[in-house]
Amino acid sequence: MKATGLIVEYNPFHNGHLHHLEQAKVKTNADCLIACMSGNFLQRGEPALVDKFHRAKMAIDQGVDLVIELPYLYAVQHSDLFSLGAVKILNELTVDYLIFGSEAGEIDSFQSLFHTYMQNKGTFNTQLKKKLAEGLSFPKANQQAFELISVDKETDMVDLTKPNNILGFSYLKAIAETNSSIKIDTIARKQSDYHDETLTTPIASATSIRKTIKEQNKLSAPTNLALPINSHQYLESYKKSAGIWHSWEAYFPFLQFRVLTESKEELAQIQGVDEGLEYALIQSAHKARSFTEWIDLLKSKRYTYTRLQRMFVHLLTNTSKDTISRLHQQESIVCMRLLGMSEQGKRYLNHTKKIRSAPVYTQLRKELPDLMKLDERATDVYYLPIALDKRQKLRAQEFSAPYYKKSR
Amino acid sequence: MKATGLIVEYNPFHNGHLHHLEQAKVKTNADCLIACMSGNFLQRGEPALVDKFHRAKMAIDQGVDLVIELPYLYAVQHSDLFSLGAVKILNELTVDYLIFGSEAGEIDSFQSLFHTYMQNKGTFNTQLKKKLAEGLSFPKANQQAFELISVDKETDMVDLTKPNNILGFSYLKAIAETNSSIKIDTIARKQSDYHDETLTTPIASATSIRKTIKEQNKLSAPTNLALPINSHQYLESYKKSAGIWHSWEAYFPFLQFRVLTESKEELAQIQGVDEGLEYALIQSAHKARSFTEWIDLLKSKRYTYTRLQRMFVHLLTNTSKDTISRLHQQESIVCMRLLGMSEQGKRYLNHTKKIRSAPVYTQLRKELPDLMKLDERATDVYYLPIALDKRQKLRAQEFSAPYYKKSR
Repeated sequence: MKATGLIVEYNPFHNGHLHHLEQAKVKTNADCLIACMSGNFLQRGEPALVDKFHRAKMAIDQGVDLVIELPYLYAVQHSDLFSLGAVKILNELTVDYLIFGSEAGEIDSFQSLFHTYMQNKGTFNTQLKKKLAEGLSFPKANQQAFELISVDKETDMVDLTKPNNILGFSYLKAIAETNSSIKIDTIARKQSDYHDETLTTPIASATSIRKTIKEQNKLSAPTNLALPINSHQYLESYKKSAGIWHSWEAYFPFLQFRVLTESKEELAQIQGVDEGLEYALIQSAHKARSFTEWIDLLKSKRYTYTRLQRMFVHLLTNTSKDTISRLHQQESIVCMRLLGMSEQGKRYLNHTKKIRSAPVYTQLRKELPDLMKLDERATDVYYLPIALDKRQKLRAQEFSAPYYKKSR
Repeated sequence: MKATGLIVEYNPFHNGHLHHLEQAKVKTNADCLIACMSGNFLQRGEPALVDKFHRAKMAIDQGVDLVIELPYLYAVQHSDLFSLGAVKILNELTVDYLIFGSEAGEIDSFQSLFHTYMQNKGTFNTQLKKKLAEGLSFPKANQQAFELISVDKETDMVDLTKPNNILGFSYLKAIAETNSSIKIDTIARKQSDYHDETLTTPIASATSIRKTIKEQNKLSAPTNLALPINSHQYLESYKKSAGIWHSWEAYFPFLQFRVLTESKEELAQIQGVDEGLEYALIQSAHKARSFTEWIDLLKSKRYTYTRLQRMFVHLLTNTSKDTISRLHQQESIVCMRLLGMSEQGKRYLNHTKKIRSAPVYTQLRKELPDLMKLDERATDVYYLPIALDKRQKLRAQEFSAPYYKKSR
């Protein structure tokens, strides 16, 4: 059986994602599509609109065969670690291809960029460090370091200010780093820009879809056009089950509580609270009247929106630098949590059972590896803004069999 | 000027308290009445119905001349430490008398009890330790240890299961411990029992008043009869300013958040989380649907309601065993925070300025002694359930001059 891997967040699953998976299937002639998906908190440091279980169902119903959770340890991280975690999982599941969507849309330019990078790794890393020390944000420092090592036009074709290009490049690095035999290819993202916030076509960016949903606090015509009908239904059913769609503002009281009741020393132990950010956090805690205001008060050249959001996720889950670095040193094999599968996906899991070295968890158990305890905690925190009776039902999903869909 | 000290919580100030202060003034012929009052969290481990500033105003308007805050370090503690902190403050303010209300109502029986205690301190302490090791709660162990050393009838006259008798006895011990020259006397609490929960007379227990107010979520006839009119007004104006009267349930989400995001080891560092209580806390965090349910799940012979409530206050304020024991070792002189004064109280402060060794803080400053940082944090946490715009106004009281009342 031939398997193709996708690395996704599906927040929410929209027509662009459908296009991506259909193209990936056609391009690789795959028997099985495997999506490695972020859990309840996402790479850019945000709570997902709806929980991982509902997002997995959206994907399975639209043709993905297996949805495996990307652990928190990797999910709420910069692109290199995010990609490393996902590629480790796809390696473990012995996929043949990894197909990613990108702004560039041509794998040759990524390969060429990667070639340049490998030949100038030393210079690149020195420059990157220098730029970071100058106070540039990671994306800016990264881009400028690349400009310094790029000489021919071809490598310049990948615009490393585009988020999906950045991720794509990280996938190539992760494949090399893990000596993976996965073949990688890319397809062009259709039409809308990642950050495009206006909804005009049936393919719209997840950012613009979320923005509209949050502003209107309901699903309406233009959003619906950009979503498969089942995404629409799962968004609605989640709202019924939880009473809310998740957004940062719902977590604001908990963040304030944490910052107001911890010492500078305690705050400085949290992942992402670097270079004296604890002082700014404490000082601004009383000024900010909302999460948005808070992050605006903290934003600077060095602290980008994304970096701050990730820090806030770790503050919310009380994840320390120590824990993160200890786990990254320990875990050579990742944990795999199954969030959903089709009949074909089940067949694939059975088929590859003997060659996997890491177990696939179908639900949380009492004794969990430390890496998965982070995910358990993230889920507990994620559901906290939900009313108690509703929350307990949603949390029960962690201890139930994953979503299973028989073939039509 | 002759000063008489009272040790109080005023939650809220009612007719019984008025009786107490009037009697105290008559009995000691005092020129100045000084109340040492708990802040926003109380001795039995509860958030006060309204904040310390509003409770101080109730007291000043009814005839108290100075309200000084009993620091968190002493306030949310068992009776011996609570009393020690309050007596230290009254010593510092060179009061002549301490008058307390008690169920017993006769100072002779307290003196006799104290005499017995001093003569059998060794035996008593051995017995107390033994009883505690057997798993008895502190009040029960204390009572049984006393029964073992009491031989004559007179000492048996003080019923040490009554909360105000327990406190009274602790005051006597604190006066001895601090070599204080304060003269102590008691007056009988009028009519209703401390724990009496039915409102029948104009003098009702604070417990029954709070219960009625919380159940009805408004002030009504029988409660009003038990309160001076100004208490009634301050309760109303607080509700207008804050939108709520405080009760444990409003803090339940924050407590859940803390317990769900900290490790067993982190929880075990919190003051009051003893003997493996962290396990029970974590286990019950998902079961409890309210604060009341949570505490019921945790209650046992060893963990009384009061002990658990105090533990929850420390959990809320993230106060560690280390901090508490470090401060108790450091602070020989207590900090005094002025919450309110009359013209006469101001005169007394000026009059005694030169003989005080500790400063009287009229508002919070940027640089605070560690002991007062606990109070600042307690205030921040106390106001958290209040809507943001309202919260900032209430918090501003910490940085404003204390309530001042000119004589009529």
